[in-house]
Amino acid sequence: MNIAVAQSGGPTCAINASLVGVYKEALKTPQIDAIFGSINGIEGIINDALIDLKTVIKTNDDMELLRQTPSTVLGSCRYKIPDNDEEIYQRIKECFDRHNIEAFFYIGGNDSMDTVEKLSRYLKEIGSGTKVIGIPKTIDNDLCITDHTPGFGSAAKYVATTVQEIIRDSSVYSIPSVTVVEIMGRHAGWLAASTCVLRANDEIAPHLIYLPECNFTVKQFLADVKAQMAKHKAVIVVVSEGVEIPEHEAEGSYQSGAVDNFGHKYLSGVGKLLEQIVSREIGCKVRSIELNVMQRCSAHICSKTDIDESESIGAAGVRAALSGETGKVMVFNRISDVPYVVDISCVAATEIANKEKKFPKEWITALENDVNENAFRYFLPLIQGEVKIRMKNGMPVHFKLNK
Amino acid sequence: MNIAVAQSGGPTCAINASLVGVYKEALKTPQIDAIFGSINGIEGIINDALIDLKTVIKTNDDMELLRQTPSTVLGSCRYKIPDNDEEIYQRIKECFDRHNIEAFFYIGGNDSMDTVEKLSRYLKEIGSGTKVIGIPKTIDNDLCITDHTPGFGSAAKYVATTVQEIIRDSSVYSIPSVTVVEIMGRHAGWLAASTCVLRANDEIAPHLIYLPECNFTVKQFLADVKAQMAKHKAVIVVVSEGVEIPEHEAEGSYQSGAVDNFGHKYLSGVGKLLEQIVSREIGCKVRSIELNVMQRCSAHICSKTDIDESESIGAAGVRAALSGETGKVMVFNRISDVPYVVDISCVAATEIANKEKKFPKEWITALENDVNENAFRYFLPLIQGEVKIRMKNGMPVHFKLNK
Repeated sequence: MNIAVAQSGGPTCAINASLVGVYKEALKTPQIDAIFGSINGIEGIINDALIDLKTVIKTNDDMELLRQTPSTVLGSCRYKIPDNDEEIYQRIKECFDRHNIEAFFYIGGNDSMDTVEKLSRYLKEIGSGTKVIGIPKTIDNDLCITDHTPGFGSAAKYVATTVQEIIRDSSVYSIPSVTVVEIMGRHAGWLAASTCVLRANDEIAPHLIYLPECNFTVKQFLADVKAQMAKHKAVIVVVSEGVEIPEHEAEGSYQSGAVDNFGHKYLSGVGKLLEQIVSREIGCKVRSIELNVMQRCSAHICSKTDIDESESIGAAGVRAALSGETGKVMVFNRISDVPYVVDISCVAATEIANKEKKFPKEWITALENDVNENAFRYFLPLIQGEVKIRMKNGMPVHFKLNK
Repeated sequence: MNIAVAQSGGPTCAINASLVGVYKEALKTPQIDAIFGSINGIEGIINDALIDLKTVIKTNDDMELLRQTPSTVLGSCRYKIPDNDEEIYQRIKECFDRHNIEAFFYIGGNDSMDTVEKLSRYLKEIGSGTKVIGIPKTIDNDLCITDHTPGFGSAAKYVATTVQEIIRDSSVYSIPSVTVVEIMGRHAGWLAASTCVLRANDEIAPHLIYLPECNFTVKQFLADVKAQMAKHKAVIVVVSEGVEIPEHEAEGSYQSGAVDNFGHKYLSGVGKLLEQIVSREIGCKVRSIELNVMQRCSAHICSKTDIDESESIGAAGVRAALSGETGKVMVFNRISDVPYVVDISCVAATEIANKEKKFPKEWITALENDVNENAFRYFLPLIQGEVKIRMKNGMPVHFKLNK
């Protein structure tokens, strides 16, 4: 039998580690022959754009480099297979048949898990034996069921490290200042909330953390900032990009209103807006910083826990397919925080596809401007450990398909 | 005799390493007794806000942590001592006398070297024996005479590492795209230009590099981008924040017009403006990314060469003062690129204060959208080597004055 693997959705530091997990496990499985990589997610299956991974990932060295390379080495897509386009499903089926692909592994976010669900259902209905398994990934950490998502820990480690550096940078002058750091997170505030881990290293900042799950009002925000300014010279505010300013309080809109293929709103600028509000209403030195795509691609400061787990969950996906599972998504179950123990199982893709897991309300403080000890205990294990990054000429070495 | 040291100007990853250099050299110099740290630059001298550094930096461990801590542990200022305010100079003199300070070391950029120049001149005129020595630092690398500036190599290493990760991030989708990365550099394009080091690791990107030293026109920019899009799916453009769009070509102004205490214009948004221009005129997927203060404070990916040199130049400053120098700034002289060899000497502060070293025109390509081999050879040694960063709870450990 042959297998195929594809990567989808927005990049993270851990998607290639999951690919390595699938690849290594397949290599050591006697009944698996060819391991195909599909270029640009499911589009590669539809368009028959496959590569034989054994011709490009040849050595342990290649695998090590791939583990430390951010983004998706096979490319990605944001294509969601339609509900009722028989031709698309037939083309996928034909590609699987042509190459004797008996298991397909889709590494992606909740939109990709929608593809896992639909495709596995179609294949079952037509009597195909090809298994479809989802390997989750997203820096947003907003997938249901799974304790956390591959890619999140590395993003959280980058964000914590960088916010700590911004704290140092913000504290140098003698005048009062406010620094607003905008963190990714469309509808769920996991990544912004994770900055609470800095308290493990005796940082008081960030002084305020705002999540999309909070009821945000400009009035309370200004009161919060003023209260912190009374105590701290350099106030650090972390805000999730998805925090919405109530319409009647925002002068002008900061949301473009544009939507992507999945109907998600493109958001930008809540940090900049809060900067303007502080400048106008308080009048102190203020700046906003957007951590942008660096949050999802800063592999040089990835979490070893995350990279190791991402590889493991890929490998577990292969074992699940071989044991007959299909239409399933691999998930982490946390056994304990200290010592940190997780195991891996699988659940029906229907339980994950097109759903979002919000940050728990009960982990938000009463004033809705911070998170509590439960959040701290949850996040801290996920950023532990450093991958020894291979360097060349003073820069990390990345694995590239076309060397 | 006692000495004092202060830090000034915008943060970098290497200012604390220079402080360690001054401190360590002073510790092992028998004739030096107390080593004072001045809080918030020269303001600490004026206001008599000094701390005895031996009470806060106690162990080799403290010094190691300080070396890996970004920003200025003693705080900073943007205060430029006035030309004719006798009272200010007297207060400085009184502070020096009160604490028997016979040498003062000022770690800062070209504005701070103005203070070194004025203060040393004043002290000589009134017959004071106190020496004043400048230790340069700036991520802008725009100081005259010195081959490069402490702090620049770490900023360049961060920028190269991050742009490489952005290249990976930008290359995942099948549709053509343009990514504009805005890099710090008010009037000089050194840091933006340094991204050419990625070619050492076989990166073709950045495909276009624009510096303030170039004649930039929107027309040529669009032609450049289109030419690159014909060859590459994901075009990466690096632009220095100081690139000016000719007035008649820019719709609306992207410069706030505000100036800081030294008359520098606050710039922001050339990346965002180019994004809008590409979107309107070419219509492809486009985004802009501002690397912001992370360029100057990302100590977790600092250059060992830079940190070691920054410590050495601090130590050399102490030796210069002891040998009787005053009104001098320490500088690097490059002996050779391969092997990379520099030595340290000192020059009159008048040669550095209030001057800017532009990026050499002859290192810019004919089309003024890239840099050449000379730039590559110059930059590459500066980013070499990694400091083994001490971690705790998955995050770098920072040295703090108030533990």
